[in-house]
Amino acid sequence: MTDSPVSIDYGLAMAEGVGPLGGLRDEELDAESASFARAATNVATQVSSGVLGFWNLPSEEAQLAAVRQVRLGLPDELTDVLVLGIGGSSLGARAIYQALSGPMELAGLAKRTHARLHFPDNSDPWLLAALLDVLTPAKTVALVVSKSGGTVETAAQLLVIRHWLQSALDAEQVRRRIVAITDPEHGPLREEAAAERWPTLSVPANVGGRFSLLSPVGLLPALLAGTDIDDLLEGARDMAARCTTTVLHENPAGILAAIHVLQHRLRSRSIHVMLPYSDQLRPFAAWYVQLWAESLGKRVNRAGEVVEQGPTPIAAVGATDQHAQMQLFMEGPRDKLVTFVRVANAARDLVIPPGKGASSYLGGTSLHALLDAEREGTTQALATDGRPSITLSIERLDAHSLGALFFLYEAATAFAGELYGVHAFDQPGVELGKRLAYGLLGRAGYERTAQEIRTLQAKQPKRYRLA
Amino acid sequence: MTDSPVSIDYGLAMAEGVGPLGGLRDEELDAESASFARAATNVATQVSSGVLGFWNLPSEEAQLAAVRQVRLGLPDELTDVLVLGIGGSSLGARAIYQALSGPMELAGLAKRTHARLHFPDNSDPWLLAALLDVLTPAKTVALVVSKSGGTVETAAQLLVIRHWLQSALDAEQVRRRIVAITDPEHGPLREEAAAERWPTLSVPANVGGRFSLLSPVGLLPALLAGTDIDDLLEGARDMAARCTTTVLHENPAGILAAIHVLQHRLRSRSIHVMLPYSDQLRPFAAWYVQLWAESLGKRVNRAGEVVEQGPTPIAAVGATDQHAQMQLFMEGPRDKLVTFVRVANAARDLVIPPGKGASSYLGGTSLHALLDAEREGTTQALATDGRPSITLSIERLDAHSLGALFFLYEAATAFAGELYGVHAFDQPGVELGKRLAYGLLGRAGYERTAQEIRTLQAKQPKRYRLA
Repeated sequence: MTDSPVSIDYGLAMAEGVGPLGGLRDEELDAESASFARAATNVATQVSSGVLGFWNLPSEEAQLAAVRQVRLGLPDELTDVLVLGIGGSSLGARAIYQALSGPMELAGLAKRTHARLHFPDNSDPWLLAALLDVLTPAKTVALVVSKSGGTVETAAQLLVIRHWLQSALDAEQVRRRIVAITDPEHGPLREEAAAERWPTLSVPANVGGRFSLLSPVGLLPALLAGTDIDDLLEGARDMAARCTTTVLHENPAGILAAIHVLQHRLRSRSIHVMLPYSDQLRPFAAWYVQLWAESLGKRVNRAGEVVEQGPTPIAAVGATDQHAQMQLFMEGPRDKLVTFVRVANAARDLVIPPGKGASSYLGGTSLHALLDAEREGTTQALATDGRPSITLSIERLDAHSLGALFFLYEAATAFAGELYGVHAFDQPGVELGKRLAYGLLGRAGYERTAQEIRTLQAKQPKRYRLA
Repeated sequence: MTDSPVSIDYGLAMAEGVGPLGGLRDEELDAESASFARAATNVATQVSSGVLGFWNLPSEEAQLAAVRQVRLGLPDELTDVLVLGIGGSSLGARAIYQALSGPMELAGLAKRTHARLHFPDNSDPWLLAALLDVLTPAKTVALVVSKSGGTVETAAQLLVIRHWLQSALDAEQVRRRIVAITDPEHGPLREEAAAERWPTLSVPANVGGRFSLLSPVGLLPALLAGTDIDDLLEGARDMAARCTTTVLHENPAGILAAIHVLQHRLRSRSIHVMLPYSDQLRPFAAWYVQLWAESLGKRVNRAGEVVEQGPTPIAAVGATDQHAQMQLFMEGPRDKLVTFVRVANAARDLVIPPGKGASSYLGGTSLHALLDAEREGTTQALATDGRPSITLSIERLDAHSLGALFFLYEAATAFAGELYGVHAFDQPGVELGKRLAYGLLGRAGYERTAQEIRTLQAKQPKRYRLA
């Protein structure tokens, strides 16, 4: 096989690299081989039986055609795209956008060849209200993204946006400016889209929200922003091919999963830090946090026993966090495993001009070379104190390597779910809070919940208050 | 005393609210009163002896005058401000800017009455290169912020920016467009600023970087962005007055510190989640993460014993993280204490227009009301499972309440350092990584370090690699 778009160096997570207190011994990793082979087989079985859909998304030709078709139907003069979605319906598209389309804060300053994307991924009205002040309805399209079709934040935003479009445009113009991305058959958004004849794309029923970025959920926003989505999917396919083997030592996602699970189980590294040395990958780290936290943080295991387990993922960025979180990572509890992401070649670099005095040594080097030296220095500093890390390297950040990186972590999460013994594809823990909110909002059918939360509020002790 | 700008409700961190497994018993909190009185006295002594400078910053009239004076000397037509700083030299100003000056991503789209601020807080060239493409040298000012004056990322950026200004402007014009904010007497930046006659402001010698946002480090950027810095400081003074008492139950910062430390020590809540339900406070959460992590994550305690301790802070935002991290917080290990931040009144709200079908109950309510119901539902959902939380409430997000919030956490951090028994005002752990990077970069005087890192790299086992 050719070189992988993402190489993994895990020597500093092993005893040979950082000693046996912080690193795994070969035999410990080897002992997980059989479990991993079962895990990989289980995942493959779920994939081939159609239960688990994310794995084959990179090869789904039909969705590409559908995405391109929808794009053709959108208004020609399109300056802005609102991605109305939250969590898995937003984080992946956001990660692609920042990695490949330039800094969002310069959206209105830089010349652009494609539409600007906006991600008001919250029920907080702050960003959406500011957007409606400056956007032009005729030149704006809203992508309404909700797998279930019932996400309350997104439903509320859709009502706001539709009203905003209707205030300026006629019915047919409005119809061309709302795209629904949702379940192929079920849910309120699917029904409404059909009734309103909005262009619609499907999130396959067997693909969960946080595993959906290689479906239209990520592909349509990426295409509108000018990303080569063929390259993105090709990178993902490249990685998928590497992640099918049941041989642990040859499977990059398997190695990532096993190192994390074993560092947790055997070395108490329960906090998993994603530390790209790249501003472009800041939202990638946020995407990883959702994927890892929501998939692996579970009350019950697969046997239905209460375990209340799961690693805590943390997003960081280098070199910035050397001045924020690194003090804790270097000197605090030995409960962290850090994953560095190195981009070998910068998309653009700045040469540092010559200076005098203390900083004269910087003259002639480049900012990216400085960044990379800082990454290497920090990696080795952690290692000298026996603190483990993994380094992922990519040659350059483009659609291909990004697609590979995404798939690598989706596969690693599926494997980690197997190795941790939990179901990685649900999120039952957020239902109660949602129901209680419905009760407060007076939603029909939630009258008992309304009573329930009033009772909880009344029981809340009032004397512990400083005001 | 009048109502506090930030009220603290900690009933759901107490046994009476969430039961004794997740909540503290009254006697446990009371038992910390004497330690807290000593802690508060120690902090007060350090303040009055001049060792600890942050406490009195809100009352320093002289720095306000200096900040205003520097502003008067800047070019009249000023569209953009580059804040060249990293960590504590950037996070505070960024937090003020996002809280009070609108979404950064709309910087180039919305009409503005004040300069746009930019925070290229990394050695990664990505953002800075994109900025230099679109900014106009004549209308741009660079604030070079480094307490020590030797921060390598900032020194490198200064060389780049000076060269960029010099390519377009004459020497006197360049001189008016670089402002140094650094130690009053020492360091390379102070020396260079004096030699170049740049306008200069001081970070008092007894104020560390992460405690500096109420010094010119935060005040000059805030003033340039149109923030009422008098209100900001007044809010901080208001909070400072509330945080001087040595009576634990009356001291808001003391209560915050004690609850966190005791939840850690007695209930194993080692992960401290900052969860504002407000997009405007996302960077505030990042500022908190640095403050808490770098101040409290320490290898040795005050007696010089190796303890390797410190809580791990996490930044989140509601309602967004209900779709990302909340599953883990609700169902995962019982190792977290969540702090909700509630903003009672939105700066701007959007009414939700009437809809049909499933979301009809939303019509007529507002996005902010939805956000607040979600916060309340999530708080109660955690509580029903015995998972502790604190809720901070502010009436509205303005300069006054923001100043109070900042000071509250600075004081809480100083107290928490005392209660944890560590020195909260240094960061020795990041020195080695920095030195090793200097070695790699060939800095004069670091020849031995260069040898050291080459040896470390050579020792790194090569066979744990998948490529």
